[in-house]
Amino acid sequence: MIGDFDTTIKGFNELIKKIKYYNEALTLLFWDLRTGAPKKCVGGRSEVIGMLSAEIFGLSTSEEMGEYLDYFEKEENNAGLDAVLKATVKECRKEYDKCKKIPPEMYKEYVILTSESESVWEEAKKKDDFQLFRPYLERIVKYNLEFVELWGYKDNKYDTLLDFYEPGMTVEKLDRIFAQLKERIVPLVAKISRSENAPDSTIFTKYFDPRQQEAFGLYILEKMGYDFEAGRLDESEHPFTTEIGPGDVRITTHYYPNLFSSALFSSIHEGGHALYEQNIDPELRGTPLHTGTSMGVHESQSRFWENMIGRSYTFWKCHYEELRKIFPEQFEGVSLEAFYRAINKVEPSLIRVEADEVTYNLHVMVRYEIEKALINQEIQVADLPEIWNAKMQAYLGVVPPNNQKGVLQDVHWSGGAFGYFPSYTLGNIYAAQIENAIRKEFPDLDEMICRGELLRIKAWLGDKIHRHGKLLQPAEIMKSVTGEEINPQYLIDYLENKYKEIYAL
Amino acid sequence: MIGDFDTTIKGFNELIKKIKYYNEALTLLFWDLRTGAPKKCVGGRSEVIGMLSAEIFGLSTSEEMGEYLDYFEKEENNAGLDAVLKATVKECRKEYDKCKKIPPEMYKEYVILTSESESVWEEAKKKDDFQLFRPYLERIVKYNLEFVELWGYKDNKYDTLLDFYEPGMTVEKLDRIFAQLKERIVPLVAKISRSENAPDSTIFTKYFDPRQQEAFGLYILEKMGYDFEAGRLDESEHPFTTEIGPGDVRITTHYYPNLFSSALFSSIHEGGHALYEQNIDPELRGTPLHTGTSMGVHESQSRFWENMIGRSYTFWKCHYEELRKIFPEQFEGVSLEAFYRAINKVEPSLIRVEADEVTYNLHVMVRYEIEKALINQEIQVADLPEIWNAKMQAYLGVVPPNNQKGVLQDVHWSGGAFGYFPSYTLGNIYAAQIENAIRKEFPDLDEMICRGELLRIKAWLGDKIHRHGKLLQPAEIMKSVTGEEINPQYLIDYLENKYKEIYAL
Repeated sequence: MIGDFDTTIKGFNELIKKIKYYNEALTLLFWDLRTGAPKKCVGGRSEVIGMLSAEIFGLSTSEEMGEYLDYFEKEENNAGLDAVLKATVKECRKEYDKCKKIPPEMYKEYVILTSESESVWEEAKKKDDFQLFRPYLERIVKYNLEFVELWGYKDNKYDTLLDFYEPGMTVEKLDRIFAQLKERIVPLVAKISRSENAPDSTIFTKYFDPRQQEAFGLYILEKMGYDFEAGRLDESEHPFTTEIGPGDVRITTHYYPNLFSSALFSSIHEGGHALYEQNIDPELRGTPLHTGTSMGVHESQSRFWENMIGRSYTFWKCHYEELRKIFPEQFEGVSLEAFYRAINKVEPSLIRVEADEVTYNLHVMVRYEIEKALINQEIQVADLPEIWNAKMQAYLGVVPPNNQKGVLQDVHWSGGAFGYFPSYTLGNIYAAQIENAIRKEFPDLDEMICRGELLRIKAWLGDKIHRHGKLLQPAEIMKSVTGEEINPQYLIDYLENKYKEIYAL
Repeated sequence: MIGDFDTTIKGFNELIKKIKYYNEALTLLFWDLRTGAPKKCVGGRSEVIGMLSAEIFGLSTSEEMGEYLDYFEKEENNAGLDAVLKATVKECRKEYDKCKKIPPEMYKEYVILTSESESVWEEAKKKDDFQLFRPYLERIVKYNLEFVELWGYKDNKYDTLLDFYEPGMTVEKLDRIFAQLKERIVPLVAKISRSENAPDSTIFTKYFDPRQQEAFGLYILEKMGYDFEAGRLDESEHPFTTEIGPGDVRITTHYYPNLFSSALFSSIHEGGHALYEQNIDPELRGTPLHTGTSMGVHESQSRFWENMIGRSYTFWKCHYEELRKIFPEQFEGVSLEAFYRAINKVEPSLIRVEADEVTYNLHVMVRYEIEKALINQEIQVADLPEIWNAKMQAYLGVVPPNNQKGVLQDVHWSGGAFGYFPSYTLGNIYAAQIENAIRKEFPDLDEMICRGELLRIKAWLGDKIHRHGKLLQPAEIMKSVTGEEINPQYLIDYLENKYKEIYAL
């Protein structure tokens, strides 16, 4: 394995390519399961997935991998690596340590626990029975506390978990960010709730033929510059984007015949994720850098397209006519203004995934505060329902009638994904910062969007963000794109300006 | 690896399960490439496929596998195995020897040659340029001659190749079978060609909406008992059936808007293959026995459903009304009799895949005779176009105007698949024998089909053939189902009786 420098590079490249290739097969297996694999194969298919996952885990933590990493981390060898290989070594080391620091037996127990607990969570949610899920969640928290001890941490235990999803993000920064948001968004939501100028969104509950919804979704995706020769659009229970491999970034949506806005905005949202994955520098293929730099930056791309573009007046000034051509009866007598207001209705509600762009961040804040306190052992799992409801009341002014619509609504914790939720709000914040940067670059941005010139925006994002993949860190990218670090002020300004007008506050 | 008896069985089962699981992932990759994977992923995806294939090859020919096989072949150990494990050991040995007897370097050269040669063949066919393909085919034949020497053979070199597709089949038997067919089918085709009672099949060239063609295909597949919870129907360039894994047997067809009969009969044909794979005993899962026993027996299932059932008068007596409901305009004024005659039009033609059930076997005979002579070094690749055309003239009375529509039409030889073609005719022969056996079991078969009771037929085939998978040899299955060995007389009788009536001979 370790030979002269060039041979060793060759061997290392072979190993990471192998991991990539197994991942490609694995990702297709997942995509297939979620888009139409027949029911009766699910049990058997899970075993195939389990075996391939174990294989990938084995390769990523193999002695061979360890030796390569040790070799390339030596100063004299590291100096000879190009930027891509340097970053690849760092990335592999991160994954290697993450896995290796946990004793194999413990890791195995945890994998079994979380896979069981996802089923238990499903059942608990269905039955609205928090007590059923509680012992599982307690054990998952306990494992994560032990993991953090093994992985190590500096200031805050939760930092270590955050870092997996948003490299460089810390509790210190997030606390500041959420405090700033809370100060302005909570009052904004309260004002909106009291406003008597609420838009009417009942127009979306007429009957919209799924095949025609699909046709319009394809139209929009094409305008955004989604490359259909390097992807496809399918239907699944929950919308998602997946990069199966180079030249193959697929998206899905879900068509509700009586809720037109759902598939429309989820298609645009997933399209935003897909543009990121489709436009990564081909130089990074076959390395772990051929992906988005973080969950937050990824989410910034989907949110930018969904909200800053897809929910803008200028966008629909260009495309509303086409929509009315496809659904003439449904939108008869609905003016562009009424349509624009309808897609921007804000309403404090119970369910995060159905939330509008203003209240969404408050849903995330509830979860962030709870996770942080759990991992720092300041609260108990047993008290979560009560804490949840109190925070909902405080930030959104609504209280779930049961745990199904409250603390049990999200899948994340049942899989142990602590530290993931903040990415959603980071995405919104980044998106607003990016929009501001684009406006500087294109002073006539509104006219461009009116003229349907989205491909110029896509190209700009590709050049500034997408092509770098994971070669640059989130903070580096944001700095180079916007000239500053993460700053929630742009999101606050964007939301205040937009909704003051819509709600005539 | 080799420990006490039980541990060794456990280890062996793990190894063959691993091979199965890799194959499952690989099969999904192939299915996906053929049903809608985006264009731009093809290059990269081929590398993933290459790696997984190499992995499977490595496992199947590993030292570990060799040690297991040696161990379980020892009399004292073999005696302790159940029937499934005994057959599994035999099957693995066959694969092991097939691969191991060829020096790795030689095998690698051959894999590269055949993969190149498939592209060259495509180009040669497009350009109608046999000389382009000739050197490749010459090398492929040369390699196969060397392989046969390494694998060994008894009476005829071609037997070794035949055996891969139809275990137990020999030139001696095939010569007898084809002679018998030739004696009766060649004159039958000649009589039909001269007949003035040819059916009119132009009704199928009207416009048939692909989505409605699909709807009718789904209707028929459901009647046949195809389990949609353990499979799905998609579209691809060429129709095929694939068992991706347990509970997942998918079929595809291709819709031609102006050739209705094509997708209809290919759906029934693939449905026949799929019923076989869907109804193998779950006990055989995770072993190489969970598949059809041979290409010929597999083809008998597709041909039985396509021709004996799908092209029968009684079948359409039951389903023609439904078809007319879906396509009222296209079949206006077309009587059931006219429809039945149209789907049974016989016409000597140039292209095998478009041939009717009578002439099909003559196309196969041309290829069989050529392959046998090539492998026995009685003819030269350079002379193939001439030989091909002479045989077409002799058996079918038609001569290709060029090599594109002659010797270059099939993909098989470019991949080195010598010995495969006879399976098609074996399938037809078996199908007729099986039909005869079913008639004995159900004296009221025609009434059953008229009443649409296809599930009873499906169940019978499942019990007699499908469930055994590869646990029984083709000859064993045919013997137990029909009471005799392969016998082409039933096919001859079936074709003569049916077409004497249709063509009023």
